[in-house]
Amino acid sequence: MWRDLGRIGLDPGSGGYRRYAWTGADRDCREWFRAQAEARGLTHETDRNGNQWAWLGDPLAGDAVVTGSHLDSVPDGGAFDGPLGVVSSFAALDELRRRGAEFTKPFAITNFGDEEGARFGLACVGSRLAAGQLTVEGAHRLRDGDGVSLPQAMEAAGHDPDALGPDPERLARIGAFVELHVEQGRALDLSGDPVGVASAIWPHGRWRFDFRGEANHAGTTRLADRRDPMPTYAETVLAARREAELAGGLATFGKVAVEPNGVNAIPSLVRGWLDSRAADQATLDTVVAGVERAAREHAERAGIDLTVVRESFTPVVEFQHALRDELCRLLGRSGPGPSGRAVPVLGTGAGHDAGILSASVPTAMLFVRNPTGISHSPAEHAAEDDCAAGVRALADVLEGLACS
Amino acid sequence: MWRDLGRIGLDPGSGGYRRYAWTGADRDCREWFRAQAEARGLTHETDRNGNQWAWLGDPLAGDAVVTGSHLDSVPDGGAFDGPLGVVSSFAALDELRRRGAEFTKPFAITNFGDEEGARFGLACVGSRLAAGQLTVEGAHRLRDGDGVSLPQAMEAAGHDPDALGPDPERLARIGAFVELHVEQGRALDLSGDPVGVASAIWPHGRWRFDFRGEANHAGTTRLADRRDPMPTYAETVLAARREAELAGGLATFGKVAVEPNGVNAIPSLVRGWLDSRAADQATLDTVVAGVERAAREHAERAGIDLTVVRESFTPVVEFQHALRDELCRLLGRSGPGPSGRAVPVLGTGAGHDAGILSASVPTAMLFVRNPTGISHSPAEHAAEDDCAAGVRALADVLEGLACS
Repeated sequence: MWRDLGRIGLDPGSGGYRRYAWTGADRDCREWFRAQAEARGLTHETDRNGNQWAWLGDPLAGDAVVTGSHLDSVPDGGAFDGPLGVVSSFAALDELRRRGAEFTKPFAITNFGDEEGARFGLACVGSRLAAGQLTVEGAHRLRDGDGVSLPQAMEAAGHDPDALGPDPERLARIGAFVELHVEQGRALDLSGDPVGVASAIWPHGRWRFDFRGEANHAGTTRLADRRDPMPTYAETVLAARREAELAGGLATFGKVAVEPNGVNAIPSLVRGWLDSRAADQATLDTVVAGVERAAREHAERAGIDLTVVRESFTPVVEFQHALRDELCRLLGRSGPGPSGRAVPVLGTGAGHDAGILSASVPTAMLFVRNPTGISHSPAEHAAEDDCAAGVRALADVLEGLACS
Repeated sequence: MWRDLGRIGLDPGSGGYRRYAWTGADRDCREWFRAQAEARGLTHETDRNGNQWAWLGDPLAGDAVVTGSHLDSVPDGGAFDGPLGVVSSFAALDELRRRGAEFTKPFAITNFGDEEGARFGLACVGSRLAAGQLTVEGAHRLRDGDGVSLPQAMEAAGHDPDALGPDPERLARIGAFVELHVEQGRALDLSGDPVGVASAIWPHGRWRFDFRGEANHAGTTRLADRRDPMPTYAETVLAARREAELAGGLATFGKVAVEPNGVNAIPSLVRGWLDSRAADQATLDTVVAGVERAAREHAERAGIDLTVVRESFTPVVEFQHALRDELCRLLGRSGPGPSGRAVPVLGTGAGHDAGILSASVPTAMLFVRNPTGISHSPAEHAAEDDCAAGVRALADVLEGLACS
């Protein structure tokens, strides 16, 4: 499976994947998915929002057990983020057939469309549309870097954009959705476990800090006469790191825009975006309040005007406790792992289709160990043994949920 | 004079001037210059490099006294940087005629082309070409943001680009060049003098700092596992400010480029440009070495790879001492100013056509007080009384040099 999929959308220059929604690479991934489904005698369909489904049993019967992930990538992404979940789903089905397991419930494998949002700037478009968390009007407003709208791109790829919209009947027929994903951190590496169960997606948000000073000539303006916003931005970057360390959360300034951004010009504006996440709301509040307080103090001292705008915010997503506990019970059969527990339960700072669906459907996630924690990069990796352990764990879970 | 000129290239939105080389606004400025020359009975010519000359007396006689500046602007520049020198030149000629002064040497007023380099990215193109400090091949390689080359732009504006090149005979006929300019700092404001004489253009340069870390997911990567170059850049910005304060020089990070520059991505690269200047080479060396040392220490601690590249460097330009002393003597006739000296002598961190010409021609500069020090901005200003004092000082100097 990996061999055919591994060639699609691989950029020879960067060594990373460029599989963006509704491009040629995306089409090739979709054809690969359909071929995998048909080779296993599964019924393939693409839903109104461009998500692929491969069914075993009657899709309309209800209480279906569904697993899957996504095949698209970030720019120059790795081989595992998304594809590991889809490949493991097909491999788990193969494993269950080897075991001679009999499905007593409808079963499906999915490939959600446009999870990474690399082309249109919004993540989880396919699952958001299905769950009604993105309106049709909102989807119509999405445009890529060349000005092509999402409906235009879908149509060019042979998918009818008029059908876009919420799909509550489809979601109501799902009794449990399980997504397996490579971990995007090192919690499993540190605990020594190949596989873990997700507890929650951390609350997270983006805050825009606009530091406004006064443009002036860098070669003639005395230091004492400057209102240079760059040092205040720099103090704020360091405060973000400090506050995150103190509180035990995450805080990152990864994007910055400067005006006029000339080598010999003192900037009039430095705009920095803070991404912050934490295991719980109180910690996140502490980090962001601490960064903002430090920024305001330094801004006041340097005569800089500061505005802070919260651009987006997602509260904590707790995966359904009953399903999570059921996964732990099913995986506990194989005995406690190196962490002393049968299977570790961990939170994550990254969003997933499973997080979107969790508002509509009982949802759970499995993570596979990532020894470096690196993701969204060609260096993203999971060991072959750990991938096999992930397949066995997913098979155990599906057997318990769908074959009991 | 100001009224007609003041309308040209004024952007109603920003309140600033957009007079870029070989554009419509530039053509209007050139027509204004020709009209001012002809109204005073001066002989107008445009030289092979696009610099305008308005002659009184025989241009070929040699030992000419020349004054002038430039009419082009930076993006959203102020009304004074450049135009004050040209307007004051015509006004000084009017003043000398009122005084009944007789010119004993050829005299010319100039408008140097493309001083700011706002369109093609290189400053002082007209004077550099004339002085042989920019080759014809180099000039042919210059392109604006739309890909239009300098020769194409000149031709479109009706100027023959085939004539471009060094003009040593023309420069050899100049006995003294004096440029009056609005000060781009507050030295005269602090000393309380309306007019000063330039000593030197400070040594200055640009250094590019490339901080390379490791791209990763901002939402899932533990702080301890990060190789985030942004905090190291921030420490370097603060070090630059500190080193400049300690040594008494200037250091500015005004331009930055981040990769991939995504809100949820730890950057793989932060590239910052340091502009640094000081009154003397030793101070400049101290500042830049201090910034680089701090950057290397922080980079090493954070596992960041740092490369520092000097992108450009201009050593100190000392204006000719004899001419400078002659200006001080001529202006000293009116008695000591508030600073206790007849006329203050000051350095500047900004480049000028006079600095380019000083390698070929005895050159001096006069500065007019700028009460805020702001330049390259619509807020750039000089008081009417100070402008009048500048005209009188320039007339005194020209009378002493050309009418004795």
